[in-house]
Parts: sequence; structure tokens; C-alpha cells
Amino acid sequence: MVQFVSVSNMLKFLARSGVEPVLSGLARYLEEDFARWEAFEKVPRIASHSRDGVIELMPTSDGSLYSFKYVNGHPANMRKGLQTVTAFGVLADVATGYPLFVSEMTILTALRTAAVSAVAARHLARPGSRVMALIGNGAQSEFQALAFKVVLGIEEVRLFDIDPAAMEKCARNLAGSGLSIVRCTSVQEAVAGADIITTVTADKRRATILSDNMVGAGVHINAIGGDCPGKTELHPDILERARIFVELAAQSRIEGEIQQLPQDYPITELWEVIAGRKPGRRSAGEITIFDSVGFAIEDFSALRYLRDRIQDSGLVEDLDILAEPEDPRDLFGMIAREGHTPASRIKGRSGGVPALA
Amino acid sequence: MVQFVSVSNMLKFLARSGVEPVLSGLARYLEEDFARWEAFEKVPRIASHSRDGVIELMPTSDGSLYSFKYVNGHPANMRKGLQTVTAFGVLADVATGYPLFVSEMTILTALRTAAVSAVAARHLARPGSRVMALIGNGAQSEFQALAFKVVLGIEEVRLFDIDPAAMEKCARNLAGSGLSIVRCTSVQEAVAGADIITTVTADKRRATILSDNMVGAGVHINAIGGDCPGKTELHPDILERARIFVELAAQSRIEGEIQQLPQDYPITELWEVIAGRKPGRRSAGEITIFDSVGFAIEDFSALRYLRDRIQDSGLVEDLDILAEPEDPRDLFGMIAREGHTPASRIKGRSGGVPALA
Repeated sequence: MVQFVSVSNMLKFLARSGVEPVLSGLARYLEEDFARWEAFEKVPRIASHSRDGVIELMPTSDGSLYSFKYVNGHPANMRKGLQTVTAFGVLADVATGYPLFVSEMTILTALRTAAVSAVAARHLARPGSRVMALIGNGAQSEFQALAFKVVLGIEEVRLFDIDPAAMEKCARNLAGSGLSIVRCTSVQEAVAGADIITTVTADKRRATILSDNMVGAGVHINAIGGDCPGKTELHPDILERARIFVELAAQSRIEGEIQQLPQDYPITELWEVIAGRKPGRRSAGEITIFDSVGFAIEDFSALRYLRDRIQDSGLVEDLDILAEPEDPRDLFGMIAREGHTPASRIKGRSGGVPALA
Repeated sequence: MVQFVSVSNMLKFLARSGVEPVLSGLARYLEEDFARWEAFEKVPRIASHSRDGVIELMPTSDGSLYSFKYVNGHPANMRKGLQTVTAFGVLADVATGYPLFVSEMTILTALRTAAVSAVAARHLARPGSRVMALIGNGAQSEFQALAFKVVLGIEEVRLFDIDPAAMEKCARNLAGSGLSIVRCTSVQEAVAGADIITTVTADKRRATILSDNMVGAGVHINAIGGDCPGKTELHPDILERARIFVELAAQSRIEGEIQQLPQDYPITELWEVIAGRKPGRRSAGEITIFDSVGFAIEDFSALRYLRDRIQDSGLVEDLDILAEPEDPRDLFGMIAREGHTPASRIKGRSGGVPALA
């Protein structure tokens, strides 16, 4: 049987474990996999674009485990009362090709994205960073805030969203987290004095959430919302003042903020920093940008973490999705046995049981 | 909730409906979608190759529905008592990106592959074909035999497999189907007098199941087993005497029998015949080959058929894989509500419930 983690059981897992310990655990798994980045198969995600959004498949493998994630991005969904992003994922055994583990990933993706952001900031933000501006207070915002708290030691989060209700929701959810929460009335106010600026807005277009004059020396920008062709959040002038870090250059040049720059603009892949191949932040005055679009290896890490942690919790169900005849050559025999009287049932001419086809 | 068809419910569906009516229904859906082939998004499947096999994702979309299939091919699995091919698939709504329908596809793939073969033969085999040689009597063989019976009117199936136990299994499963079953002791004996030759063997290598002198004028060859780089079943001399039909030229030139021919060798895509754009068989003496490797649109058709037919049967379960917060911006609130006392639980410091992470 294939293991399955439902939405309901994911919520129970998080309620029992606590979100912060999960973010911390995810960060450990992510750093392990970033450090062995070269061991993974890397192909750009396979996107199916339509008028309202995109559906993507994100596969990878380390030669022993294979994973893929199904994820959509439909900014217009919010106006219909639906999630912008939903996702689920699968781990499989490379040696047999059998799926092993299926999980909801709408929630897990928000967690892993936040954990990736925090891991990147640990290598790129100024040491001692304590204040983060959080621009865009939608579905991913609280996860970002908590990841930066637990992984980086952020103490104050300055919120801004063009929708005051979203900001209130975020502030309410973070109340009692131990973070100092400041509601701001503009992007300018939010970023004033921030060590880190996280942009996580959802419009599917070229937007300028941050303009050049808002970004002072030494700031680390965690740019999450620009993640497909035509969707960006930063003014190109900021990019040109900063050192830019991405997950996978080939994918980010198409989907990230750097789609606004020439194809040969110098960038660094985050794994190179984590593996000690290239420097992260080099000085206190440098502006660093993590231009994050998400990559399959991060989902691999998240699924691997979840599978390890949720075993023996009673929160894993069996999913009857893998046909396993006793004799592997006798797939047909499974049907015959189900029908009890092979010949007549298989011909579909027997009485008694109503025909469906 | 997302709809789910388990292996167990797929077996019940087939037992109730009968395999032959399902094959016949699948053939109708396949012909509909082949006829509107140009409406679909077509990308080569995304393959992850390893020493023992391959894991593939096969996505497509008609602009309204999106589908993908996860499928593996591991010939060595059989020696471990495992299935060579296992699969599952998903239908999703292009407008929202939400998954709608998840199904086992190990059994459904065998059914759709057989139905595609029979649809192709209806356009390519000599009218009045009544005898089929079935070379390779593994997991897919019975489905092929029944599809050719119900879609094409095949009356006699001549079996051969290098493993006599596989042949016996196939013969036993087809007993009572109304087909006349002949057990043969060699490929030569099986193909003698056959109107159609189906090759469906599983070795992952260049094999010569059929050599040139076995294939007489007017025969239609349904070549199923050669379906990845390095895996072929037919001697190239046969290919050069025949007119060759494939699903998608770009994919088949890499994975099909025609990987043995120059990249510009003339071939015809099956949809062009079904849509009336190009001729199928032109004379009684012509040798035709359907060099089948499987394509995503066929899985789309199969999932679409199953979803339509299995509704209201009691055989569809709810799969709790789609997180749907009441307020789509408040994904985090779902966790907080699950934990009841947001602040303490989210911090993971509350007593009472054992921590997992």
C-alpha cells in the first residue's frame, strides 16, 4: 500500500508538532539537500499555462528517491473564494518505480517555501538581523514570519498589504507567536529600518512592489511573489544594485525577478553558497536578493522530512492506488477474480449486477 | 473534495461493467480525442531514467481539462514479483488549477493501451481481419485480445510467449471470452496466417521478436513493447517494407521502433488518419505498422471516460488532498483552528499532545 497524508492529518500533525519545530526541521532537511544539489536530477518544471493561471509538475530524483509535485498558480482564484496555490506530491522508489508516499502539499508548500527563504537568509542576510518587513499578507505570510523567527531569530515583523483585511488576518494569526507585530500603512513605512524585506504578493503581472529608493544599504530582499513569466515585484534598478541568488539559474531566468535582466547577468545559485563553493554576503553594506521561484528539490526535501517525521504517528493512511496482482503478469486475473465467474462477467453479459458502461 | 477511484473500486467497476464494454467505450472516447488532436497541448513525457527503469510524467490539456499520468517501466520488477508498469492519473480543472479526479491507472493503462491499438487497427488493418498473433503474453496481453475482439471483430488469437506459464495464464484468462485461442510453440507458428501481429514483450533492450521473413504482405503489425530508447522488437528491415503510423512523431522517433531509422524517415501520425487528413491503409498488400509508445492524450481520454462512467456508481471516494480554508488567504488559520489554542500550539510548546517533530 502507498502511504497517504491527507489535509486533515497534515493539520493534526502541525497542531501536535507545532509549526515552528516543523519549519526548523524542514530547514535542516533543505540544507542537507542543498548541500548535495549536484546529486539531483534537475529539469525545469513542466508548466501548462492558461488564461487564468498555470499548472505545473515538478519532478526530481537523487537516484534513490524520486519525487514530484503537482502545483497550480491561479491568482484569480482568490476572487472566487478559492486558493491561489494548491499542491500535492509523491515520493517514489527509483529502484522499482513504485509510489511510496502521497501527501497534500498546499500547506506543506507554504511551509517549505518559508523554510527555504529562511535558509537563504541565514546565508545572505546581515548577521544580527532582527526586523523584517513583510509585504503581502496572504496565505503564505504567516509561514514566512515564523520561519524567519525560528531559523534566523527575527523579532519584529512589519506588515503591509493593500488589503487591510489581509493584514489584520496576518496580525491576528501571529498574535501570541512571540513576534512583535507592527501594522504599517504603506510599503515605505513597512520597510523603514527593516534588515530583511520579504515580498510575497500574488498578482500575475509586472508589479513594482519595491522601488529603488525604498531599499537601503545592507538589506536582504526575500522576493517570493515573482515566480512566473510576466510576474515580478521588484524594480529592475534594485536588481542592478544587488547581488542576486537563485535556486536554479535556467529556471529563474525565465520565471524570477531576473527575467527583467539580460540572460547572461551574473547570478549565484543558492546551493553553491550552502555547499561552500561561493560566498554569500560579503559585506554589511551589500544588498542581497534571494529571487525565489521554488524548485523541485525543495519539495523533495519537504516530502522526505514529512515522511520521516509522520511515521508511527497514526496520521498516515493507506492509499489503494497501486494494483498488485499476486502474479505480476496476471493483472487481468485480478479483474476475473473480482467478477468471480470470469468468462461471463468479463464479457459484460451477465445479469444480476447492473452494468455501468 | 477530489474524487478518487481506488484499485479495489476499479476492479469492481470492471467486474460490474464487463471489460469488453469498457474497451468499447474507451475506443469511442479515444477516437473523439484523436479527431481533435490539434486542440491538445503536446509535450514529450518527462522521463527520469535509472539503471533499472524509468519513471515518467505525461501531462496534457485541451484548454478545459488538464490531465497527467505517473507511470513507471521497470522490466526487472517481474523477477522481484512486482509489476513492470504501475500508474495513476489525475484530471484537473484548467480554469482553477484544482485537481478534480484521481484514479489508479495500472489497470486503466492496460485497458487504454489495448483500446488505442484496436482503434489504430480499425483504420490500418485489412477489412475483415479475423486472426491475430499475440507475441508476449504478459500483463497486457488479455486486454489486447479483448479489445481487438470487441472493436475489430477478431475471432482467433494465436498465443506465443517464451515463458510457457505466461502463455497458459493468458489462455486461461481468455477461456470463455468467445475467442478461439491457439497456443503456439514459436513466433513463426503464431504469425502463420495472422492478419494482425501484436508484439507486446517487456525486455528493456533491442530484441528482434519479429524478423523480416515472418511478415507477409497485407499484415498489420501492432508494436506495443518497444517504448523507450534502446528497447525495440522489430527488425529494421520490416520497418523499411512498411508504412509506419505513430502517436506523436517527436516522441516516437526517440522511443519507438523507428528509433532504428533515420530521423527524417517518413511516418504518419495516427490522428491524421482518424481526422481524415491522411490515408490509412491504401491497399490489401500493404504492410502497416502501428509503432505505439503511448501518449498523454490517450490517458486524458481514459480518465475522461472513467470519470463520466463511474459517477453515481458508489465506486468513487472522496480524497482529502485539497486544503480549502474558508478564507483562501487564511491557510494558516486552518492550522491554528486545528490546534484550538493558536499561540501556544503553533509555538509547539504546549504539553498534553506528544510532539512529533
